[in-house]
Amino acid sequence: MDGTTTRGPGRSVLAIGAHPDDIELGCGGALMAHVAAGDTVTMLVMTGGENGPGDDGQIAGRRAEQQRAAELIGARLAWGGLRDCEVVADSGTVRRIEQVLRETAADLVYVHAPDDSHQDHRAIAAATLGAARRLPRVLHYQSPSTLAFAPSVYVDVTAHLAGKLDALAAHASQVERSAMVEPDAVVASARHWGAQARIGYAEAFQPTRMVLDLAPAAPAVPASVPAAWALVPAHTSAMPAGRR
Amino acid sequence: MDGTTTRGPGRSVLAIGAHPDDIELGCGGALMAHVAAGDTVTMLVMTGGENGPGDDGQIAGRRAEQQRAAELIGARLAWGGLRDCEVVADSGTVRRIEQVLRETAADLVYVHAPDDSHQDHRAIAAATLGAARRLPRVLHYQSPSTLAFAPSVYVDVTAHLAGKLDALAAHASQVERSAMVEPDAVVASARHWGAQARIGYAEAFQPTRMVLDLAPAAPAVPASVPAAWALVPAHTSAMPAGRR
Amino acid sequence: MDGTTTRGPGRSVLAIGAHPDDIELGCGGALMAHVAAGDTVTMLVMTGGENGPGDDGQIAGRRAEQQRAAELIGARLAWGGLRDCEVVADSGTVRRIEQVLRETAADLVYVHAPDDSHQDHRAIAAATLGAARRLPRVLHYQSPSTLAFAPSVYVDVTAHLAGKLDALAAHASQVERSAMVEPDAVVASARHWGAQARIGYAEAFQPTRMVLDLAPAAPAVPASVPAAWALVPAHTSAMPAGRR
Amino acid sequence: MDGTTTRGPGRSVLAIGAHPDDIELGCGGALMAHVAAGDTVTMLVMTGGENGPGDDGQIAGRRAEQQRAAELIGARLAWGGLRDCEVVADSGTVRRIEQVLRETAADLVYVHAPDDSHQDHRAIAAATLGAARRLPRVLHYQSPSTLAFAPSVYVDVTAHLAGKLDALAAHASQVERSAMVEPDAVVASARHWGAQARIGYAEAFQPTRMVLDLAPAAPAVPASVPAAWALVPAHTSAMPAGRR
Amino acid sequence: MDGTTTRGPGRSVLAIGAHPDDIELGCGGALMAHVAAGDTVTMLVMTGGENGPGDDGQIAGRRAEQQRAAELIGARLAWGGLRDCEVVADSGTVRRIEQVLRETAADLVYVHAPDDSHQDHRAIAAATLGAARRLPRVLHYQSPSTLAFAPSVYVDVTAHLAGKLDALAAHASQVERSAMVEPDAVVASARHWGAQARIGYAEAFQPTRMVLDLAPAAPAVPASVPAAWALVPAHTSAMPAGRR
Amino acid sequence: MDGTTTRGPGRSVLAIGAHPDDIELGCGGALMAHVAAGDTVTMLVMTGGENGPGDDGQIAGRRAEQQRAAELIGARLAWGGLRDCEVVADSGTVRRIEQVLRETAADLVYVHAPDDSHQDHRAIAAATLGAARRLPRVLHYQSPSTLAFAPSVYVDVTAHLAGKLDALAAHASQVERSAMVEPDAVVASARHWGAQARIGYAEAFQPTRMVLDLAPAAPAVPASVPAAWALVPAHTSAMPAGRR
Repeated sequence: MDGTTTRGPGRSVLAIGAHPDDIELGCGGALMAHVAAGDTVTMLVMTGGENGPGDDGQIAGRRAEQQRAAELIGARLAWGGLRDCEVVADSGTVRRIEQVLRETAADLVYVHAPDDSHQDHRAIAAATLGAARRLPRVLHYQSPSTLAFAPSVYVDVTAHLAGKLDALAAHASQVERSAMVEPDAVVASARHWGAQARIGYAEAFQPTRMVLDLAPAAPAVPASVPAAWALVPAHTSAMPAGRR
Repeated sequence: MDGTTTRGPGRSVLAIGAHPDDIELGCGGALMAHVAAGDTVTMLVMTGGENGPGDDGQIAGRRAEQQRAAELIGARLAWGGLRDCEVVADSGTVRRIEQVLRETAADLVYVHAPDDSHQDHRAIAAATLGAARRLPRVLHYQSPSTLAFAPSVYVDVTAHLAGKLDALAAHASQVERSAMVEPDAVVASARHWGAQARIGYAEAFQPTRMVLDLAPAAPAVPASVPAAWALVPAHTSAMPAGRR
Repeated sequence: MDGTTTRGPGRSVLAIGAHPDDIELGCGGALMAHVAAGDTVTMLVMTGGENGPGDDGQIAGRRAEQQRAAELIGARLAWGGLRDCEVVADSGTVRRIEQVLRETAADLVYVHAPDDSHQDHRAIAAATLGAARRLPRVLHYQSPSTLAFAPSVYVDVTAHLAGKLDALAAHASQVERSAMVEPDAVVASARHWGAQARIGYAEAFQPTRMVLDLAPAAPAVPASVPAAWALVPAHTSAMPAGRR
Repeated sequence: MDGTTTRGPGRSVLAIGAHPDDIELGCGGALMAHVAAGDTVTMLVMTGGENGPGDDGQIAGRRAEQQRAAELIGARLAWGGLRDCEVVADSGTVRRIEQVLRETAADLVYVHAPDDSHQDHRAIAAATLGAARRLPRVLHYQSPSTLAFAPSVYVDVTAHLAGKLDALAAHASQVERSAMVEPDAVVASARHWGAQARIGYAEAFQPTRMVLDLAPAAPAVPASVPAAWALVPAHTSAMPAGRR
Repeated sequence: MDGTTTRGPGRSVLAIGAHPDDIELGCGGALMAHVAAGDTVTMLVMTGGENGPGDDGQIAGRRAEQQRAAELIGARLAWGGLRDCEVVADSGTVRRIEQVLRETAADLVYVHAPDDSHQDHRAIAAATLGAARRLPRVLHYQSPSTLAFAPSVYVDVTAHLAGKLDALAAHASQVERSAMVEPDAVVASARHWGAQARIGYAEAFQPTRMVLDLAPAAPAVPASVPAAWALVPAHTSAMPAGRR
Repeated sequence: MDGTTTRGPGRSVLAIGAHPDDIELGCGGALMAHVAAGDTVTMLVMTGGENGPGDDGQIAGRRAEQQRAAELIGARLAWGGLRDCEVVADSGTVRRIEQVLRETAADLVYVHAPDDSHQDHRAIAAATLGAARRLPRVLHYQSPSTLAFAPSVYVDVTAHLAGKLDALAAHASQVERSAMVEPDAVVASARHWGAQARIGYAEAFQPTRMVLDLAPAAPAVPASVPAAWALVPAHTSAMPAGRR
């Protein structure tokens, strides 16, 4: 979880949200901590771009706000091109996320928690779990509409709480939708989770899987695992090479 | 999760187990990865030392085996001084663990999973959760007697699997008790969890809480949190300073 | 949870089910208890009305049966207008439920449990959780097709069990579909849950959230919370008023 | 959940905590809401009284603080007579709680959550579940040391948050133990749970079972349940009357 | 769980998978154990047949491979006729599975675990739970893409592990899709679950419900249940016979 | 799960309960089904025998009642020799259960569910899980004091429900303790679980692990597992034979 020279120029992190401001609210502080640690951060907002509701001016305004918020966080911004309130976790959505995963070569993904009362959040969480099926690190953040949430992984955001609120404030046009996003509740939850984490202010994450970075450089597998451990039975030599 | 220079000479890690070889079996590979990353590792074996069963020679033999295993891992060894099969999670056990936590200044603890069919394992897990109540990082490992286990945090042990087996082999006298500790099952579980973690071979951990290390140096809280966020109501000025 | 004069003419309760007789089976006794306590109850049946299968006579017959059952319970009846076995939790379904929530001003909702083997039940539970995202009271009832169900909230239906069976019996034409709805199982489950609840006969509910009614009249927030607790950081004055 | 005249002078509520200030922290606001609604509230503090650590003056001081806190809440105070950090859930502890349950005729109990890293909290939660085995209402509150906590029942404490902090402040001598009890975290958690409950500020509870009060007066069982439902098989007439 | 003469020619078992090789991977060993015990086994592969991707030759090749794998297991093969990556749990999918359940008269079903990152696996698990809503035995197997999985039912596959690998090897053309299906991981998981089950090598299953076969021949219900237990209230004589 | 000739004279089943009548109530019907299928059943009652409360006549009376109940079920009876309400899950309790497991050579154990509000039930469940740590089949039954209970394994007890009630009625002296054991609730729960299991009347069990019996005779491991799968790394030849 660092940006040491042994890993080169830092980790590539991808945060995915269904709507503008979902990512800032769920993991904006953690993303700023990643940027501060030298990691590269990309925010993928699945709806609210070219296909969003409203006239061209409103769409352009919303896109500009999201761009401003990404800049405050220090992240690159990508759009998913889906339509608000009509997201489904079909193969098209999975492929769009797979494409951004390839472009960013991310190996840590932040996304909505799977159990959420908003259909778009559920769909994006499900599609991300499909697209990231081979990634060793997938963390889920909480939204105001999240239902069951049992976090066990935390990031200290004490140094980034003001920045997170500034990023949220960039979304001036989201007024109606954001009736559930109150700044004092954002601060309160950070303090609540901070107490759970035994630190100051924290963002909380429910991990699907989280491989820790301990070693500066892992040796190749063949070097340390004796042949007998390969577990390939001798008599199934008909098994095609591609399957191993 | 690293030992970069910004954190000084590396993290202090404490692994706690009820009996000789519990720690090696549950997280021996992860401990070797910590050592390889420059962290300081202490193994606290709660029973099997001076109060163990057997005559003086047997006790000395078992202590020598555990010492040898710790050396293979590269860890310092401490004994809890409790008696095998009679461990309870009372205040005495909690205090013994608190003492080692203070001595090592550890901020990451590995210990048995709480739901285990062996009474000593349950007691050590419970006592450790009490002793480590202010620590931001507590991870639980699986034992052959563990019941419900839902891991989500993993460490890549591909480079350390042979070393882990060597450390387990150092416990030659544990023959009878270790009927449930079969080397092939150790390798198989590492491969099974590795597939879950989307890496080669892994040890799996159930987190009570795990604060990630992202930033090289966190600023002090007052510097970044506006006064209004301190959440201390003005009219409760009678609240003693020590409680804040 | 009462209809005392301090709350005026009683609470408005909304019960939602996918098909005719789902509501009676899941929470018919509780609804009769609400009526007896002076609350206003609305039953929203999402399918089986104008779009249902069968010829016009069958449809009219089924609607008349449901109307009779609602009258036995003492509830107002509303129809969702969806088609049996083809319900999805899309924005249209959410909006239909939101509309009835607005019309009834309900602040307590009963609906299917989310984990159910019938696709319509799952969809209605999910859509209701979306539509009721700002409501403080959402309780889930069990159906014969419900899978995981962990109730912790109960209503004593001893006085209403006979009435519940009468309301179920009003659905004479539902014979085929109701092979899983056996009156003796209805009584047995009420007794089983009654034993769990430490009362006579009970209906059992799994709460998503349930705010209890303790105080006759809650003072407004500003009166009792010091300004410092508002948690709004001073320097984010650019935050638009609408977001607070 | 009310104090209507049909239930006479109001409900009898019992709150149980292991140590001084546990109850105030976990459910102090809810208790004040009960008092405001006309309910009778008793606080049972299991340790810290006559058997507590310290000299007679310290013990007397701590008891006076707890008495002052109970007065601020409007509750009667009872002591469990156990020794701090040495509580076990044995038959003696169960009997002590049973005795207070009988004296108060309470039918709603608040107590620690069962999964807690403090051994005394675990023991009191377990003993209370035993003592209250026939009670229809048992709610668990969160402590700073609580581990898994999945609340679904909430009480609005907006009107009582200042009072709760005052009651906590009465425990001036608990300075050392209360390092985990920070007023700003108390406010933050109330706001966090309030957002979860869709109200202002809330205390959150995990229910073991919670029977709702809907009907002003429930008829007796025989009046409404036909004889056939009694489920007593005719041929087991040898069954003693006392078992029915 | 046997094929004794009292049950006639053996149980009818149905295994359902979304894609070619899903069934072999998830429960191929258990199916071979069923065949060895005299049970009749049918494999229902929902996609990859006539509607699959690729030209006619590729489709025919894939179908031939699946046919060969079924023969190695000793099972009859059926196709669901759905399209890969586009499966939804709608009424059409449910009806297709109901049809095969009727044809096979199966009373034990194996299917994907419900919580899976692949949309087709989720859909097939959900549709099967709907179609098998009246069956007393539904067991879920793990796939490489399965997320939460808490098995408690196991089948000893020590005698069938080589056969399972042979059946998997029959799917030579599935190379690309099967990057997550590595033979050594198959063996390792069987050993891992075997250790959990306290046997050699095992396949692990999460039960939705599993009725055990204990008695060679169960008497009819009326013979042993006194009339009073029928729980049918006398006064609801208007209840139609079909509902009882 | 049968008593076919291939398994010789039938399975040996051990049911364990804390007090007289706990076993009958939790799994009496299943035990009768085992007996009917030719299995050998032993009931181990841990308290209430020679160390129980009351004078010698009362103790003798209670023992005679339990003996009569065991005879009605067709089971052998054993006593654990512990004292009512003072059971702890220490090594002595574990050893007593281990002793009976050895004597009976049981490979299927029924015992209390682990999460129970009665301390003796919790202790017996925990001690049994320790004693049965190498057994492939451990099923937990529900008691009136059981808390969380999520059954997924069922036994059809339609043919044995009357017999179960007769066995319970044999415990005439248990009047006071059995206030929570009402025959109508026993029948109701059997019907409730029967509906969950999709059969008539059922007893429900939460499995810790349940290995199914499919094959009439399993070949030895070495015969079917190629050498390469043994997973024993070549270079750790120092590993003592006893550990393999």
